[in-house]
Amino acid sequence: MEFEEITPGPLLADIHSPDDLKKLDEEQLVEVSDELRDYIIDMVSIHGGHFGASLGVVEMTVALHYVYDTPEDLLLWDVGHQAYGHKILTGRREQFHTNREYGGLSGFPKRSESKYDTFGVGHSSTSISAGLGMAVARDLDESDKKVVTVTGDGAMTAGLAFEGLNNAGFLDSDILVILNDNNMSIDPNVGALNEYLVDITTSKTYNKLRDEIYDMLGHFKSAGKKMRKVASRLEKAVTTAITPGGLFQALGFKYYGPVDGHNVDTMRRHLEDLKDIPGPKLLHAVTVKGKGFAPAEREQTKWHAQSSPFDKITGKQLDPDTEPKPPKYQHVFGEAVVELADENEDIVGITPAMPSGSSLWPLMNKYPDRAFDVGIAEQHSITFAAGLAAEGKKAFAAIYSTFLQRAYDQVIHDVAIQKLPVVFCIDRAGLVGADGPTHHGIYDISYLRNVPNMIVSSPLNEEELRNMMFTASNFDDYAWAIRYPRGRATGMDYPEEFSSMEIGKGQRLREGDDIAILSFGPFGNYVMDAADDLSEEGIKVGHFDMRFAKPLDTDLIDEVCHTYEHIITIEDGTKLGGFGSAVTEYLADKPHHIPTTIMGVPDRIVEHGTQEELHDEVGLDPKGIKEKVKEVMQAQSLNA
Amino acid sequence: MEFEEITPGPLLADIHSPDDLKKLDEEQLVEVSDELRDYIIDMVSIHGGHFGASLGVVEMTVALHYVYDTPEDLLLWDVGHQAYGHKILTGRREQFHTNREYGGLSGFPKRSESKYDTFGVGHSSTSISAGLGMAVARDLDESDKKVVTVTGDGAMTAGLAFEGLNNAGFLDSDILVILNDNNMSIDPNVGALNEYLVDITTSKTYNKLRDEIYDMLGHFKSAGKKMRKVASRLEKAVTTAITPGGLFQALGFKYYGPVDGHNVDTMRRHLEDLKDIPGPKLLHAVTVKGKGFAPAEREQTKWHAQSSPFDKITGKQLDPDTEPKPPKYQHVFGEAVVELADENEDIVGITPAMPSGSSLWPLMNKYPDRAFDVGIAEQHSITFAAGLAAEGKKAFAAIYSTFLQRAYDQVIHDVAIQKLPVVFCIDRAGLVGADGPTHHGIYDISYLRNVPNMIVSSPLNEEELRNMMFTASNFDDYAWAIRYPRGRATGMDYPEEFSSMEIGKGQRLREGDDIAILSFGPFGNYVMDAADDLSEEGIKVGHFDMRFAKPLDTDLIDEVCHTYEHIITIEDGTKLGGFGSAVTEYLADKPHHIPTTIMGVPDRIVEHGTQEELHDEVGLDPKGIKEKVKEVMQAQSLNA
Repeated sequence: MEFEEITPGPLLADIHSPDDLKKLDEEQLVEVSDELRDYIIDMVSIHGGHFGASLGVVEMTVALHYVYDTPEDLLLWDVGHQAYGHKILTGRREQFHTNREYGGLSGFPKRSESKYDTFGVGHSSTSISAGLGMAVARDLDESDKKVVTVTGDGAMTAGLAFEGLNNAGFLDSDILVILNDNNMSIDPNVGALNEYLVDITTSKTYNKLRDEIYDMLGHFKSAGKKMRKVASRLEKAVTTAITPGGLFQALGFKYYGPVDGHNVDTMRRHLEDLKDIPGPKLLHAVTVKGKGFAPAEREQTKWHAQSSPFDKITGKQLDPDTEPKPPKYQHVFGEAVVELADENEDIVGITPAMPSGSSLWPLMNKYPDRAFDVGIAEQHSITFAAGLAAEGKKAFAAIYSTFLQRAYDQVIHDVAIQKLPVVFCIDRAGLVGADGPTHHGIYDISYLRNVPNMIVSSPLNEEELRNMMFTASNFDDYAWAIRYPRGRATGMDYPEEFSSMEIGKGQRLREGDDIAILSFGPFGNYVMDAADDLSEEGIKVGHFDMRFAKPLDTDLIDEVCHTYEHIITIEDGTKLGGFGSAVTEYLADKPHHIPTTIMGVPDRIVEHGTQEELHDEVGLDPKGIKEKVKEVMQAQSLNA
Repeated sequence: MEFEEITPGPLLADIHSPDDLKKLDEEQLVEVSDELRDYIIDMVSIHGGHFGASLGVVEMTVALHYVYDTPEDLLLWDVGHQAYGHKILTGRREQFHTNREYGGLSGFPKRSESKYDTFGVGHSSTSISAGLGMAVARDLDESDKKVVTVTGDGAMTAGLAFEGLNNAGFLDSDILVILNDNNMSIDPNVGALNEYLVDITTSKTYNKLRDEIYDMLGHFKSAGKKMRKVASRLEKAVTTAITPGGLFQALGFKYYGPVDGHNVDTMRRHLEDLKDIPGPKLLHAVTVKGKGFAPAEREQTKWHAQSSPFDKITGKQLDPDTEPKPPKYQHVFGEAVVELADENEDIVGITPAMPSGSSLWPLMNKYPDRAFDVGIAEQHSITFAAGLAAEGKKAFAAIYSTFLQRAYDQVIHDVAIQKLPVVFCIDRAGLVGADGPTHHGIYDISYLRNVPNMIVSSPLNEEELRNMMFTASNFDDYAWAIRYPRGRATGMDYPEEFSSMEIGKGQRLREGDDIAILSFGPFGNYVMDAADDLSEEGIKVGHFDMRFAKPLDTDLIDEVCHTYEHIITIEDGTKLGGFGSAVTEYLADKPHHIPTTIMGVPDRIVEHGTQEELHDEVGLDPKGIKEKVKEVMQAQSLNA
């Protein structure tokens, strides 16, 4: 059977649900943990996936399902990268080879996939708030189910996690937050909280100090009555004050730890103890991202996820594809921002925890004082950029489209209303592929286009991206958003020199009288392919690369209306409120209005798959464009 | 002169900028503080405004401008409600009677208004992030200017503030955060952080404990050598551990305080000392909201803001308007949610720090276990609601439109993608009036309409609001947004019984053949007025109350297209991407398309004023509608 291409270990082979896991003896948990780890490594070495995080929680996962009565007890995995072991233990081992594939398992927990997945995730830092909601619902229902979240130290830096802690500590509802402290997000963690946690886990200060104080207090207790009284009061206060985790205690949580998250027996015993302790509590477990797979332990960022098969001992890529490939858009950004920064010392770069993913590394390496990884803190990243801009810096905020949703108010309130010229370099715009619906960057055109003092642009290719960045770097009137997709650019040769671009102006890419296609962004390349094919079939497409959703090139649209009988717009974003919508708004009351068909992502949840598979599914590829053109032209001739 | 209707005290009269303040002797600061307080009370007693917060920072404001070299040194006022004294001391006393009036001073700091207003605010919790951006810009410029933020304890509960602290503690840039601790947001503060601060400020535990420990250590130092060594190590560690503010220290801030924020001499001395201490530091100042005005000290929520003249001694309203008035929309919501909760015990209510503003109080009073004020924590409020919904609760999230921007990702990622049936009751939708651009709720139609699994609706009046809430309470397929404006409803009689409403269906309100107006929400009432007038002029308007921007009543629109030659849409939101845009998207490629004119808020920053003034300015009132109808019909007849 295909799904048994990887042979699970003998214990794991018999586990089809947590009930099976519970049949094992406590002593067997080490073995089943090892089997689970091997299985994850085997599977990912063939099929790819995010596994560093899951390897780091193997023992925790086993202990959690062993101790708790899942799914009755509610287990929430923050971010969700961590949940491979959870999926394998909860009846999905035999489907696990479809992980992140089109039609297969999601790479994240997903409510519709399993009753064990209590809350869908993809973005970080939601678990405490969602878990608290569940805990309160449990209290209202007078049930005694437990709620447990597994929340990374990286996720803890996000404001949402803090808001959740602050409210949980206040409501005093029964909830266990496991702080999975591996000192990493995708990139190494940054921030004062991280330093605080490192201090707790790496120094012996706390324990030693506590011991010494207890010694002293003992000494005092043997002294006179007054001293005994003081000592007794001190003992209580000092115990609280000297325990590590005072930060969490200040927020109303009982703190336990740090404990070794890779000792399954320790984890099991702690969880069993904590089951009987009411109220909000935090267990600080120290883990290693990529644990048990040496290359991943050594190079944690690189091994956060893998997409191609590798040797599971050496980590060496199998059959590496040595074909030269076009650069990714993120790399074009990463190089261009350094070139611009070379010339303009006011340029600074900001990323919320994505120096690798957004390719801000080159700027951070060359100008460490001018490039800032602020950690998982999207809101802060934008208000921080606004502060820099208010004092005359040219801030390039490099952020994924889906994560900019977290900073929407900051875009409006801190940047746009004040007309601050922040440049938003929005990566992963459009359908992103295997990460699926939590990560698709399909809302940004509409949620930015409605904001005043905001340019919304998208390049056709490398050269346009570079020139947009250059033009934006010299534009000081207000904000500018440049969106580009995940993945590879066209591979074109582009000039080393930057050129200025006229704001709000598109360009004609192809002559042709039958129908006009207005494209926004790199989907224009699909249009070129489709137009070539259509041309062979005798259909002549006029193609316009619009570059700007706002301001819209209304002169060009007017011209198109006078030449053509139908417009098709296409964009890598939702059909509602985006670029196509801008065109229909403009034309709606114009006497020269011509029928306009909007091509974009449909108004439903699009699941995961490769970008190509998803483009095909929603009809946003050369084939879909050709079909739409023919459909429109047929309808037109019927109406004529 | 009109602006001297209030006579400032003799010292204040001569202060036209902070330079004038600096000419005073230190001993005069008490007097000038008193004069400033009196001036604020006098002015607000006549003109209205938010003054509780400003009265609480009078001495702090005087001390800050006395000690710091503003505007060279950068002063940031979080939320901005606090900045009246700041405005009066920085050259705006003579304009201050125009505060919050159309064309007058903004009620908040505003960059375009004064060089002393370093960062515009209206929403809370931005100051640390923005200040840190400015501090980093200062470092890059190798300048030595100081950056000081005044951040309320309420604002500290928001994730953005935490993200800012965490990054500031890490970057180690020189910044002073003054924690203005008055134990209030608009409503009393909630949350674990609040309890922590109360504990610091109300108990003597910390100081007493510290003294006792020092006593003990002294005793030990006189003991043997080994004990002396231990005692010496302990002293350092214990000093840190026992100092209040460990939470802030954990985040990399030096903590100072608590100090009396109403002692101007204390404040001045502390600020002078802190000027010479580098790095991130927090001064914890305890203040009283409404300080110096007895009624405001007693009833802080009620006196957060006042709009009508009052007696400045008794607080009694002058010439109270005793006319019976229609209920506010918020009260219609507040009553209806209780009635629904009476019948359905799964219903719960959530508000982020706005129990009064959103009228969640009735539910909180009647069902304290089922209504949650989570504090200023918009992101958490929505993910918390999602967690409740995931466990079967019917969560009504009551939130202002402008604040829902803070939870946009949570709406998409935690609610919509998972098809959780959260009901968003979105208050203050549309142009809100005197609070101005930071608070206008004009983006929500477009930023929600583009999200799948989301109904977007707006009632015409009280009855529709109640019936939408009722229908939503029985709708479990996915999320539902109901938006309604600030201010009073129509005053209609409505049935006590709720009725179900057909989802995605509008209704014809008025027959008339000349032109069709499709209204979304309470602006339909303006349309009725305009249509009455137009009818007298012989223009017959067909008026349709559409109720839903999503799903759109396309049947009704089709019918309209077959009957009329032109559509006008109207909504209390931006013209870009909203309800009107939905209509134009739908019609864009339809053979029965008819010209459609979108009326909405224009794509620019609309400043403050009364709602009526703003509606007039942007042409969204009966007069504007009439003009637009005539303009459209004239153009139509020219084209015919």
